[in-house]
Amino acid sequence: MGNIITLTTDFGLRDHYVGVMKGVMLSVNENANPVDITHCIDSHDIRAASFVIGNSYRYFPEKTVHLAVVDPGVGSERRPLAVSADGHFFVGPDNGVFSSVIRSCEDFCAREIKNSDYLLKEISSTFHGRDIFAPVAAHLSLGVSFSEIGPQVQNPEVLPSDGYSINGNEVRGTVVYTDKFGNLVTSIPTEAVGGGAGASVSVGGKRVAGISESYSSVEPGEILAVGGSCGYIEISVNQGRACDIFGEAPPEVIIVREES
Amino acid sequence: MGNIITLTTDFGLRDHYVGVMKGVMLSVNENANPVDITHCIDSHDIRAASFVIGNSYRYFPEKTVHLAVVDPGVGSERRPLAVSADGHFFVGPDNGVFSSVIRSCEDFCAREIKNSDYLLKEISSTFHGRDIFAPVAAHLSLGVSFSEIGPQVQNPEVLPSDGYSINGNEVRGTVVYTDKFGNLVTSIPTEAVGGGAGASVSVGGKRVAGISESYSSVEPGEILAVGGSCGYIEISVNQGRACDIFGEAPPEVIIVREES
Amino acid sequence: MGNIITLTTDFGLRDHYVGVMKGVMLSVNENANPVDITHCIDSHDIRAASFVIGNSYRYFPEKTVHLAVVDPGVGSERRPLAVSADGHFFVGPDNGVFSSVIRSCEDFCAREIKNSDYLLKEISSTFHGRDIFAPVAAHLSLGVSFSEIGPQVQNPEVLPSDGYSINGNEVRGTVVYTDKFGNLVTSIPTEAVGGGAGASVSVGGKRVAGISESYSSVEPGEILAVGGSCGYIEISVNQGRACDIFGEAPPEVIIVREES
Repeated sequence: MGNIITLTTDFGLRDHYVGVMKGVMLSVNENANPVDITHCIDSHDIRAASFVIGNSYRYFPEKTVHLAVVDPGVGSERRPLAVSADGHFFVGPDNGVFSSVIRSCEDFCAREIKNSDYLLKEISSTFHGRDIFAPVAAHLSLGVSFSEIGPQVQNPEVLPSDGYSINGNEVRGTVVYTDKFGNLVTSIPTEAVGGGAGASVSVGGKRVAGISESYSSVEPGEILAVGGSCGYIEISVNQGRACDIFGEAPPEVIIVREES
Repeated sequence: MGNIITLTTDFGLRDHYVGVMKGVMLSVNENANPVDITHCIDSHDIRAASFVIGNSYRYFPEKTVHLAVVDPGVGSERRPLAVSADGHFFVGPDNGVFSSVIRSCEDFCAREIKNSDYLLKEISSTFHGRDIFAPVAAHLSLGVSFSEIGPQVQNPEVLPSDGYSINGNEVRGTVVYTDKFGNLVTSIPTEAVGGGAGASVSVGGKRVAGISESYSSVEPGEILAVGGSCGYIEISVNQGRACDIFGEAPPEVIIVREES
Repeated sequence: MGNIITLTTDFGLRDHYVGVMKGVMLSVNENANPVDITHCIDSHDIRAASFVIGNSYRYFPEKTVHLAVVDPGVGSERRPLAVSADGHFFVGPDNGVFSSVIRSCEDFCAREIKNSDYLLKEISSTFHGRDIFAPVAAHLSLGVSFSEIGPQVQNPEVLPSDGYSINGNEVRGTVVYTDKFGNLVTSIPTEAVGGGAGASVSVGGKRVAGISESYSSVEPGEILAVGGSCGYIEISVNQGRACDIFGEAPPEVIIVREES
């Protein structure tokens, strides 16, 4: 099939910008199937966009095109980019917005968008989402050959990883994302910890009971650590908001693994 | 046709959770047609979700699948549920989220979701929307037989009704929902009142002119009662917000019917 | 193809109203393809809705139906309207919501919606979006003849234009829209100014360097004027919010064109 195009932007929901991009897609490919991931990335927060895309793309069928427009440098020298990785396509500015995808894929191919056949006739200096990225995404969803998009790029922008470190039984990481429920997603993969109620967890200096099976393993209002749905340890409060417990700065997370 | 799947959640619009559920649906059924009802239910507000679903499902074609994920007990003992009622399907946690549907349907069939053929391979303990409910909804939208989902359940969770009481000409109810415009939807069905400008309406002790034909029957800024679009009496302010007039607690509504 | 129906409302995203309208559309036309422009127009802000529709419709394929429901006068005497203009259809209340479209099209045809074959059976007094506009839009998306909708209307409501004035080299306008990024869209068409770094720009009495090529032509945090993506001069701050610099009242914008 193809035709699915996901959208991740910082455009918000008040203006016509997202609708306009979908109009452009449908003008290029009448069967385009745009699916919103989110338009509520904080303005210019490239790192959050990279997190969101890295945690969503693989739930879509192969050949899906993933459009990301978080683009503080629009109209500057930054290159417009298309990436083929893990059976999916990615279209957006070359500013690190696809870091999580590129870091996790050994084989990827990045191309600078150059072929004007796939762009709108007039290119504004402030809205490449409409003039460049939406039409390229729609052409890719139609099955245009990826190599037609433009010349290969060897060094697409990749943000440094948040990472984590392992020292004996101690695993250290940090909080990389806070979701709508106030859950704190850490940089520590669940599989690096091995889990279990016997692990010792400290978040921003606060002790948390070991790694729980689910939110409801603790009493309502109590803090817990849990293997989250993104594959990373999350810090949560059962029926509450973990983010309200810690300050602005992302707290350090230290987990001492259960002796096995 | 089938293929329509509505979504009602408390996931908000910032994170990738809704997009991921749509990706799962489209991976199961490439013709799935997800339609958002809302993702802005207050976190864990099962009652509001039940209200929203009960007031929207019947505007969709029969065989539509309605997914609801407001699920504070995810990962606990609460059962995953699928309901067939009034020609539609409903999929979500067995926590009362389908109360309004079940209360209004004499014939309904509820099943516990058990058949692992219709689930993702790995089931997390924090995101059953993705791992259980989305794929089951997508399989139902494909036309899978409802009886395949799992064993029948006799006593799905149903929240107590807000209700209303009639005593002679006096009808008493309460406010059950406040919408974006600040309109207060009451628990009093319009047909229980019979309407008419001669009715006497009191809201939280405040007198309101009788039941109006429309918002613009009164001056801008004036409070009114009106037979609302959900079939219940609503308290509104013409071009204003009725909710700002009353405090946090839902006010009692007393209507004395017009003598006929 | 047809089948595309865009939606622009002030319904917000919390309630079921938008989902219900889509359900009605899909019940009339199972191939209807509803595309959200925005539901976050400020309550009753007809002027903002007109701006948004005027700046988005032409990016959709011809024959697209554009639904607008910003309707403070619902249930009053205001007429329900359908407009054919520039190869597109528009459906909504006759309150000025299509001003920008009608002003820019020499040939348009407006009709009062009268034919009850295309409406829901019961018409509420508070939700014409569901009962009148959504089903009419869906019937038009099915290819129903426009003349079937109802009798022609000669004088649809049109709001006064914000406009701009030219006096020698001086162009005066005002701010007509503030977007999510805090960019101020003015009423001055970029082509009326001719652009160039030598132009002198004053916004609310503040001097701005001439018209820039893009946001990143100035330092982060600096104010600039730029030919925006809607075809009008915009006032922006590179990686910041121009709207925070000025007060509530829309500032006057004066541009003295570069001598040529």
